Amino acid sequence: MLDEIATTPRSDERFKQGCERFMAVTGFPAQAFLDNLKDSSPDFGRYLIEWVFGDVYGRDDLDLKTRELVVIAAGAALGATGIDVLKFHIPNAIRVGATREQVFGALIQVSIVAGIPIALAAITAAGQILSDVNGAVE
Amino acid sequence: MLDEIATTPRSDERFKQGCERFMAVTGFPAQAFLDNLKDSSPDFGRYLIEWVFGDVYGRDDLDLKTRELVVIAAGAALGATGIDVLKFHIPNAIRVGATREQVFGALIQVSIVAGIPIALAAITAAGQILSDVNGAVE
Amino acid sequence: MLDEIATTPRSDERFKQGCERFMAVTGFPAQAFLDNLKDSSPDFGRYLIEWVFGDVYGRDDLDLKTRELVVIAAGAALGATGIDVLKFHIPNAIRVGATREQVFGALIQVSIVAGIPIALAAITAAGQILSDVNGAVE
Amino acid sequence: MLDEIATTPRSDERFKQGCERFMAVTGFPAQAFLDNLKDSSPDFGRYLIEWVFGDVYGRDDLDLKTRELVVIAAGAALGATGIDVLKFHIPNAIRVGATREQVFGALIQVSIVAGIPIALAAITAAGQILSDVNGAVE
Amino acid sequence: MLDEIATTPRSDERFKQGCERFMAVTGFPAQAFLDNLKDSSPDFGRYLIEWVFGDVYGRDDLDLKTRELVVIAAGAALGATGIDVLKFHIPNAIRVGATREQVFGALIQVSIVAGIPIALAAITAAGQILSDVNGAVE
Amino acid sequence: MLDEIATTPRSDERFKQGCERFMAVTGFPAQAFLDNLKDSSPDFGRYLIEWVFGDVYGRDDLDLKTRELVVIAAGAALGATGIDVLKFHIPNAIRVGATREQVFGALIQVSIVAGIPIALAAITAAGQILSDVNGAVE
Repeated sequence: MLDEIATTPRSDERFKQGCERFMAVTGFPAQAFLDNLKDSSPDFGRYLIEWVFGDVYGRDDLDLKTRELVVIAAGAALGATGIDVLKFHIPNAIRVGATREQVFGALIQVSIVAGIPIALAAITAAGQILSDVNGAVE
Repeated sequence: MLDEIATTPRSDERFKQGCERFMAVTGFPAQAFLDNLKDSSPDFGRYLIEWVFGDVYGRDDLDLKTRELVVIAAGAALGATGIDVLKFHIPNAIRVGATREQVFGALIQVSIVAGIPIALAAITAAGQILSDVNGAVE
Repeated sequence: MLDEIATTPRSDERFKQGCERFMAVTGFPAQAFLDNLKDSSPDFGRYLIEWVFGDVYGRDDLDLKTRELVVIAAGAALGATGIDVLKFHIPNAIRVGATREQVFGALIQVSIVAGIPIALAAITAAGQILSDVNGAVE
Repeated sequence: MLDEIATTPRSDERFKQGCERFMAVTGFPAQAFLDNLKDSSPDFGRYLIEWVFGDVYGRDDLDLKTRELVVIAAGAALGATGIDVLKFHIPNAIRVGATREQVFGALIQVSIVAGIPIALAAITAAGQILSDVNGAVE
Repeated sequence: MLDEIATTPRSDERFKQGCERFMAVTGFPAQAFLDNLKDSSPDFGRYLIEWVFGDVYGRDDLDLKTRELVVIAAGAALGATGIDVLKFHIPNAIRVGATREQVFGALIQVSIVAGIPIALAAITAAGQILSDVNGAVE
Repeated sequence: MLDEIATTPRSDERFKQGCERFMAVTGFPAQAFLDNLKDSSPDFGRYLIEWVFGDVYGRDDLDLKTRELVVIAAGAALGATGIDVLKFHIPNAIRVGATREQVFGALIQVSIVAGIPIALAAITAAGQILSDVNGAVE
């Protein structure tokens, strides 16, 4: 039944905007991220750029700083699984105007729902990430 | 910086194919699903149809039966969070040709990685879901 | 060795401030919450008021609205475990000035890290919670 | 390759001992538990009795009371997924000699690693379970 | 009460079949795996071989290829906790006839329930595992 | 509304007792732990000492050995997120009188609720941790 439905057309405009927003948020070209997936699953890289940066980051319901603090909170709550989320989004949060105190404030707020070890690991990781960001800026 | 980038255009073709595949897989019109979200977050409903059924279910790397068993396994591994995944996908699995034995076989296979209580809850839920499916068919 | 250390004194001032902040954030007296635990573990109720509302909500690193959006994001990321977090904190978020759109925006942002079923359950729950809040206000 | 290996023989002695230990720990016949699975996956019920009660509960490294407090702690840490673990094991803990205070003490100890909402839900569930146990005893 | 029940006899036939199936699925002798646990918990190694490979892999409800894709999906859904599951089972999946495309297809299917960061980590790990498998074959 | 409530006073007596109990349980001065957080979030370090060691470890509902086995069980159940909990608490358990067999017994008991891969990772980590503890004692 499904085979009668033609393949979904790639939405090139959406992909292009996703790449532009990726660059605006992270300061790095999306291509570098996509290259990491080119030998495993390039389609997955494309979905991610299109959905996350093409769709979700194009919304106007949250300002960018709140958006980054929110995604840091959700990532931290995932524990070990979310450490890479912190590595990706904490530098973004600083770029779009969050202070170091707000990042730690968000992680302390996470500790009241996700528990001490998750918050401790996130705060320790954030300390390292922020010191790397700082080093890069200087 | 981001506000200079125009809003992502809705990819209507992709949405339309997503709705058709939703119907082909579940036997229900996508509109019924979308209506549940119309007062809360209609955009989220649209993303889901576009990405899950427009993009992922349009892939040809897995046949539909394996695809449904795989998503049942991943959903079961999420524990209480994934019970709704089972309610949605177990009837789909049967529709696309999986047997009752294969569904339980997949959940027993999940038990070796996700543990006894998760598997016990999934198997109990599956028993109920399959008996409802059966009742509906007769 | 530990038995030589006297029992920790209850920090009454901290508890009192926790109760006041609980009322300020939720609109309900802390006593109603504490009464739910009086036959099981009253000490745990006290720890919660003291740490969460005495310590963490007394911090000045995040404004209250961001604090509530952050805790909603972390709670949503916990899946079924966090639904009660949403029931508690979404009405608080509205009370301290978040809009309905910001709450859904935060949950959509969570979807990019915690996945579709977690976000779908959170958005569905939020729709119900917000409609109850609205009903109560009118 | 695997099809040349004959089916694993059922270890009837191990199953029989599992049933006896199930009865000794829970106060209920294993058959009642197995009957719940007879229309879905009776094999899974058998694995559970054999491994959990045939193998693990036959070990002599932990006394039964500690064993039950340990499994309650692990179950509580699973959040919503583990509530059924609490329903099954808290009455067992009381049966094998744990006090009500020790059960709540274990759940408070869990709160320091698994977080406030998980502990709050577990303590609330335990309060109800213990009041049912008490009602049944009187 | 429990001490009147004699110790569960080791089911040597089941263990022997478990070892044979372990070898058939993984290409490595079970003894190498068991040796890793000989100084910590040899009993646990034995339970694992007996239950996972003696019982579950002896079932005929799923063919081996589907069984491996299902366990990869469940393992991937566990996030950081499941990366070792991928390291163990992805080479097995290839051995029993799954293609590289099917492995990535399963992980993309997992992304729709377990979220982007979990799928991204799994796909990245799979790319590395598959390149090691390939290197070993050549 | 909240800004009318003065900042929560630091409960110095509770902090002091927390530090003493930290030393009694772990054998290390709390200051070493606090120093790790001094550049990121010293407040979080203080909350942890006050709540975990000031409040919870001051309770008399569980003896210290059971308390440590319970927290090891809950930590193990968290999977990859909880490995640091094991690194912190397994040496404590040995210090307060648990045997090596009881630690592994607790982890095997965890395997029946949290699954094989979580238990396997915990048992493997425990083997390494216990061999380091042993090396340090000799």
